[in-house]
Amino acid sequence: MIDAETETTPDVTPFRDDEGRIDTAFLEEIEAAVAERDAEAVRRLAGNLHEADVADLIEALSEDERPELVRLMGDDFDFASLTEVDEAIRLKLLETLPKDAVIEAIGELDSDDAVYILEDLEPEDQAAILSRLSVSDRVQLQRSLDYPEETAGRRMQTDFIAIPPFWTVGQTIDYMRVADDLPDTFYEIFVVDPGFRLIGAVALDKLLRTKRSRKISKIMQETRYMVSATEDQEEVARTFERYNLVSAAVVDDAERLVGVLMVDDIVDVIQEEAEEDLLALAGVGDEEISDTVLTIARSRLTWLIVNLGTAVLASAVIAIFEDTIEAMVALAVLMPIVASMGGNAGSQTMTVAVRALATQELGSRNVWRVLRREVLVAVLNGAALAILMGLVAMLWFGNAGLGVVIALAIIVNQLFAGLSGLGIPILLDRFGVDPAIASSVFVTTVTDVVGFFAFLGIAAFWFGLPF
Amino acid sequence: MIDAETETTPDVTPFRDDEGRIDTAFLEEIEAAVAERDAEAVRRLAGNLHEADVADLIEALSEDERPELVRLMGDDFDFASLTEVDEAIRLKLLETLPKDAVIEAIGELDSDDAVYILEDLEPEDQAAILSRLSVSDRVQLQRSLDYPEETAGRRMQTDFIAIPPFWTVGQTIDYMRVADDLPDTFYEIFVVDPGFRLIGAVALDKLLRTKRSRKISKIMQETRYMVSATEDQEEVARTFERYNLVSAAVVDDAERLVGVLMVDDIVDVIQEEAEEDLLALAGVGDEEISDTVLTIARSRLTWLIVNLGTAVLASAVIAIFEDTIEAMVALAVLMPIVASMGGNAGSQTMTVAVRALATQELGSRNVWRVLRREVLVAVLNGAALAILMGLVAMLWFGNAGLGVVIALAIIVNQLFAGLSGLGIPILLDRFGVDPAIASSVFVTTVTDVVGFFAFLGIAAFWFGLPF
Repeated sequence: MIDAETETTPDVTPFRDDEGRIDTAFLEEIEAAVAERDAEAVRRLAGNLHEADVADLIEALSEDERPELVRLMGDDFDFASLTEVDEAIRLKLLETLPKDAVIEAIGELDSDDAVYILEDLEPEDQAAILSRLSVSDRVQLQRSLDYPEETAGRRMQTDFIAIPPFWTVGQTIDYMRVADDLPDTFYEIFVVDPGFRLIGAVALDKLLRTKRSRKISKIMQETRYMVSATEDQEEVARTFERYNLVSAAVVDDAERLVGVLMVDDIVDVIQEEAEEDLLALAGVGDEEISDTVLTIARSRLTWLIVNLGTAVLASAVIAIFEDTIEAMVALAVLMPIVASMGGNAGSQTMTVAVRALATQELGSRNVWRVLRREVLVAVLNGAALAILMGLVAMLWFGNAGLGVVIALAIIVNQLFAGLSGLGIPILLDRFGVDPAIASSVFVTTVTDVVGFFAFLGIAAFWFGLPF
Repeated sequence: MIDAETETTPDVTPFRDDEGRIDTAFLEEIEAAVAERDAEAVRRLAGNLHEADVADLIEALSEDERPELVRLMGDDFDFASLTEVDEAIRLKLLETLPKDAVIEAIGELDSDDAVYILEDLEPEDQAAILSRLSVSDRVQLQRSLDYPEETAGRRMQTDFIAIPPFWTVGQTIDYMRVADDLPDTFYEIFVVDPGFRLIGAVALDKLLRTKRSRKISKIMQETRYMVSATEDQEEVARTFERYNLVSAAVVDDAERLVGVLMVDDIVDVIQEEAEEDLLALAGVGDEEISDTVLTIARSRLTWLIVNLGTAVLASAVIAIFEDTIEAMVALAVLMPIVASMGGNAGSQTMTVAVRALATQELGSRNVWRVLRREVLVAVLNGAALAILMGLVAMLWFGNAGLGVVIALAIIVNQLFAGLSGLGIPILLDRFGVDPAIASSVFVTTVTDVVGFFAFLGIAAFWFGLPF
C-alpha cells in the first residue's frame, strides 16, 4: 500500500511503518503530545487520520492516555472510529468519557455505527443515551436494537434513498442534488411502491449512463436478492459473497424496505465468522487480545475441563491393560504414538469437514463421495505410516512382533480417525450444533480410545499377554 | 435470503432450498434434461441463473454431465461462472470443452475473470489461447499474467474510467453516456495527469450530487490509498478491510494507473486467506473438496510424517523412564493426561497468537503484555486443572503422592504450553516462516516432551523409583 498523501507531505511523520504497523516514532510523538496536553500537536498528528487508524492508535495507547487523546482531539475526534476498537477497550473508554460528549457524538453517527456502539453497553446506559436523542434518531436506533444480535437488522444502515418507479432519471438526479439527508456513501438507489415495498434498484453507474428523460421503471433491475431483517449475518455474508454484492436491501416481514447492508460491514462479518471457526476448533471462545486475564482464563478453562474428561476416559482404557503393560513396558513407550497419529489425521479430516460445512460445499449430494475418499485416504496414509512406524519399532526394540502390532493398530486408528473426522461434524451439523465448537473433543476421544485400545489389545492378543 | 424472482414466478422450480443448498427437485429436473439432451429445458431451468448458481450447479453434476450442460446452454452459458468453480473441476471441464468455444469465451470475459481462468492452465494451453486473441486483449491479459501469483496485478480489472482533472462534471457524465467500452460495474472514476499518473478519484454518488458546471478537480478526493501492482493480495485485503474500501486503484512502479481492484474479489481473497490459516493449523494444505484421493493423501501425509517424528521423540522421553514405569504401572495410565492437557492449552494459545499475528493485533508494542497475560492464564488454569486431576488420581489409585505428582506436572506443562504457544508463532513470524503452517508441530513437541518428562521425572524423584 502506497500512502500517497504522506509522500507528498514528507514533513509529517508517517502513521504506519513498511510492514503496516503503527510507526514507533509516530507513537512516541503522539504520546509526548498527550503527556504535555498539547492539543495542537495532537490534532496536527492525528486530526487527519482515517477512523480505522485512529482506532489502531487508541488500542496502542495506554488506558490513561486514551480518554486524554479523545479530549485533546476535540471535534476532530470521529466517534465512528470506536466501531473499529476492540470491545473491552471501547467499553472502558466510553465509561471514562464525559456522558454528554458521548450522547452528542452518538446522535451524529451513521445509524449502523451508533447501533454498533450502543449494543454492547449496559441496558441502563443504553436507555439513558437513547432517551436524550432526538425522537427520529431514537426510533430508528431502537428499531435496529430490537432485532436480535448478529442479524441483518442489527447491522443495517437505516439511511438510504428510495424513489417511486415513475420518476425520470433527471428527476432523480435533481432530487439527489438538493436533498440534504442523504447517506454518506451509497452505490444504488432503491425503487419502492406506495406501500414502501421494495420493487427494484438502480445502480449509480446505470443512472449516470442513462438519458435524463428515461423513466426509472425502464432502467431499474428487479430485486433478485433481498435480505430479511431477521436473517443471520453469516447467511447474509454468504449471499454477498456468492453473488458479489456491494449492497443489499433489508426488508421487514411485510417486505417493506427498512434498511441497507453495505459490503464493508459484511467484510467484517466474514472476518469475524472465519475467526470464530478458527478459534472454536482450538477450544477458544470469542476472545479479544485486549480481554482481561480472568475473562480469558475462565473461557478457556471450560474447554480444558471437558478435555480432561476425555483424557481420563482414554486413561481408563489404558488401565484395562495395566497387566499387559507390566508384562511388556515397551508398550507404554509406543502407545502414545498410535493415539497421536490418529489425533492428527482426525483433526485434518475434521477441519476440512467443518470448513466445507460452513461454506456449504459439503452436503447430502456429495457426502458419500467424500466419505469414500476419506476412507481411501485413511487406508493409503495408514498403510504408509504403519510401514514406517512398524520398521522403526522393530529396529528400536529388536522385536518384529512389536512392529507388526503397531502397524496394525495404526491402520485401524487411521480408519477410525477418517470416519469420525468426517462423521462427527456432519452429525453435529444435522442436530443443529455448531460443528466448529464441538467436533474436536469427540474426534479426539475416538482417536485416543481407539488408539490405546487397538494397540494394547492387539499386543495382548499377539504376544498372549495378560489383561 | 428471500429470492423475490422465484416468488413472483412460482411455476419455476426454485434453485435453492430453505437452507441455501441446491434444491434436490431442481437438480433432478436438470439432470433429466441433460440426459435427454433437451436444450430448451436446460435453458429454461438454468438460463437465468446467476453465474454463482451456475457454478454450484456444475459442481453438483457428475463429470460427464458438466460439458454436456455447457454445450446445451449454448450462448446462455457465461464462462464467468467458471471462476466460481473449484480448480480441479474447472481444469477438467476446460479440457473436455471444444478449444474454439473456450478461446472465444475467454476473449469476451472481463480481464480479471479471463486471467483467473488462464492462470491455472498449462503454459502451452495458455500460450495457444493468448495467441488467438485480439492484440489488445492479449497485451492486457499478458500484462496481468506477468505479475506474480497472488498479487494485486493478477487480481485487478484492467477496464476502468480515467479522466483529466480539468473536465467538468457535465462533460464526464456526457462521456459516460456515449462511451461504449466502459467496465461492467464501477463505483468511482479515476483522475489522472497527462502521464497517466493517478492524482485522485471521484465517487459516483459525489458526481451525481454535483452541478454539471463544476470542475472535476474541485470535487475529486486526493488519492490516499493506492495499491502497488506487485503487492501481495493478503496485504491488499487488509487495507480494504481497514479502510472500508469498495474499490482501489492499482498503479505500476512509476505510479501510473494500470487497473482497479474491486471489493468482491477482495472478499474472495479474505475467505481464501482465512481458510488457508484454518487448514494450515490442522496440517492440511491447499485442498479442495473436489481433489482426487491421491492428491489429498499425499499432501496430508507430509504433515503426518513430520508429526510421527515428534511422536517418536516424545516416546524416546518415555523410554528413559522404562524402569520407573515398570516399578509403577499407574504412571503409564496417567501420563497421557498430562501431555494431552498441555497440548490443548498450547493449541489454544497458539491459535490466538497465529490469528493475532495475521491480523497484526499482536506486535512488538504489546508482546510483553500478552506474554504476561498468557503466563497468568497458564498459572490460573494450570492450578485449577492440577487440583481437579490431583484429586481424581488420588481417589482412583488411592495414592496421595500420585495426586501431588500429577498436579505438579500439570502446572509445569501448562506453563510451557502457554510460553511455547505464544513464543513459537512469534519466533516463526520473525524468521519469515508462516506461523499457521509450522507452529503446531513445534508446540505439540514441547507439550508432549515436557509433559512426559515432568510427570515421569517428578514421579521417579517423589517415589524414589529407578530410571
